[in-house]
Amino acid sequence: MKKLINAPENYTDDMLRGIYAAHPSMVKYVNNDLRCYCTARKKSGKVAIITGGGTGHLPLFLGYVGENLLDGCGVGGVFQSPSSEQIYHVAKEVEAGAGVLFLYGNYTGDIMNFDMAAEMLDMDDIASQSIVGADDVLSNKNTHARRGVAGIFFLYKCAGAKAAEMGSLDEVLAAAQKAKENTRTVGFALTPCVIPELGHSNFTLAENEMAFGMGIHGEPGVWNGPVKTAEELAKESLEEILADMPLAAGEEVCVLINGLGATSQEELYILSGSVRHILDRRGVRTYRTFVGEYATSMEMAGASISVCRMADKEMKEWIDMPAHTPFYTQV
Amino acid sequence: MKKLINAPENYTDDMLRGIYAAHPSMVKYVNNDLRCYCTARKKSGKVAIITGGGTGHLPLFLGYVGENLLDGCGVGGVFQSPSSEQIYHVAKEVEAGAGVLFLYGNYTGDIMNFDMAAEMLDMDDIASQSIVGADDVLSNKNTHARRGVAGIFFLYKCAGAKAAEMGSLDEVLAAAQKAKENTRTVGFALTPCVIPELGHSNFTLAENEMAFGMGIHGEPGVWNGPVKTAEELAKESLEEILADMPLAAGEEVCVLINGLGATSQEELYILSGSVRHILDRRGVRTYRTFVGEYATSMEMAGASISVCRMADKEMKEWIDMPAHTPFYTQV
Repeated sequence: MKKLINAPENYTDDMLRGIYAAHPSMVKYVNNDLRCYCTARKKSGKVAIITGGGTGHLPLFLGYVGENLLDGCGVGGVFQSPSSEQIYHVAKEVEAGAGVLFLYGNYTGDIMNFDMAAEMLDMDDIASQSIVGADDVLSNKNTHARRGVAGIFFLYKCAGAKAAEMGSLDEVLAAAQKAKENTRTVGFALTPCVIPELGHSNFTLAENEMAFGMGIHGEPGVWNGPVKTAEELAKESLEEILADMPLAAGEEVCVLINGLGATSQEELYILSGSVRHILDRRGVRTYRTFVGEYATSMEMAGASISVCRMADKEMKEWIDMPAHTPFYTQV
Repeated sequence: MKKLINAPENYTDDMLRGIYAAHPSMVKYVNNDLRCYCTARKKSGKVAIITGGGTGHLPLFLGYVGENLLDGCGVGGVFQSPSSEQIYHVAKEVEAGAGVLFLYGNYTGDIMNFDMAAEMLDMDDIASQSIVGADDVLSNKNTHARRGVAGIFFLYKCAGAKAAEMGSLDEVLAAAQKAKENTRTVGFALTPCVIPELGHSNFTLAENEMAFGMGIHGEPGVWNGPVKTAEELAKESLEEILADMPLAAGEEVCVLINGLGATSQEELYILSGSVRHILDRRGVRTYRTFVGEYATSMEMAGASISVCRMADKEMKEWIDMPAHTPFYTQV
């Protein structure tokens, strides 16, 4: 294991200390717990949006806490859920009189802890709603059973924008729901990653082998085989996405080309060019392209392709709304 | 070699096609040459700042072309200089009546080609000045012979801000010079990278071996040895930087923690926390911390630490000026 760290058992907390020290005007923690990550710029009367999940996916999850996006994040250990108490304390801090939306990835441990936090809020008479990102097309044929991966970015953007517009809790939930219904992702890995406290990768890939459809925690994909070209991967990924969410010529989409950690920005733009070329040929119009690291798996090499259909004008306005966090700035 | 690419020989141009397709409102190319990379938002009467260098360092170099930063970039092949003709054509396109500042890294091939481009501009009666980033402390004891690495970000910021303030060519040069005099960088690598057309790395590191002080093209460093902790690397790097540029207690600096490509953002923040801790103990005040990928070496694992001393209030204003490019947005 080659990593720039101190003690493996301090990985998450050392990271958090670095983040708080670098961005003190934007984020803070509460309950004397580094893992209760909150905006430092609470806005009265706004629906509070709270996410959470394991460490190891930066900028997911905490990186989207900031202006016109999210308000708080429960931070778990590497690939582990935050506790219900942590989520509850974040919610108590950032709740601003208009209720709480829990918006996170579709993983069993997270669901359990967010649901318990919702019950705790209910006892305090704080209204909450929950929605999970479940965009990973190849993780399950059943849309409700799919894992949440990079496409949650579009749920954050739409819900965050609606909350910034001072929408009600139901309206913010509906914005997230609209983004969810219109977002699909396919990912592929060229290398595994190493969980610091384990010290070795939890699966292996041979010298010229890749894994197609695998998850951001190393969940098995649909095939392992020789590394394909960017064009081939773009084609195969879009075929899966479009089989699940057909797009007619003339429809508009946003595209997110997400690096899983070790893949260079050069490669991401090569892949982005291939995706664009295929969409152009099909007559699908690209409203906006996002390229970079949005949901990673530490130093895993690979990428994911997310497509978010622009269902209406309102969605485009949400996507276009400026946003500002320590990890993501859009003007 | 595991990369998301098509043909290795098309690496640079495929990347550029992807970038232009993703950001058509911000950047364009001229002279029918993808590698003549220019802002699409030219501003009349402003000093034009032009950079350039080899591909493989995104967001360096072209990623800093945009609002309140640079105006154009000559793009070379992987780790190769752009040609003098390419630089000249970029300059002719973005020059806006106030002259041209060439601002790039201190590498022999680049110097030769930028100097030739300056001569070509001179024949067209277009004034130009040149300055090179040379911040890599460990590359040479002689400050003029040092390589330019991630610290050029601060030169871009200061020169870009002064140009945006409609400063004269001499004033913009002076802003870059002020940043240069106050910026130092030390870097270290955990793994090498692979040049696509070679297909193998140009050096090797053993399972637990790292290289301290090495360059972003794999230039040899000052030692190869067992991987150290983030705290040890922060300490050793700052000792080198502060030996070269002493800082008194009470002085203010900006810090840039730069990932070389494959290193996770989690690790960069762990390193950032260690750097901050040391500066705090010395009484050096951190005005602003930048963490992320600013100058990479494709999929090389490792990081660099840059310190930029805030010499006066004006410098802080330049650093704080908003900026917006396809790769870097600051509000």
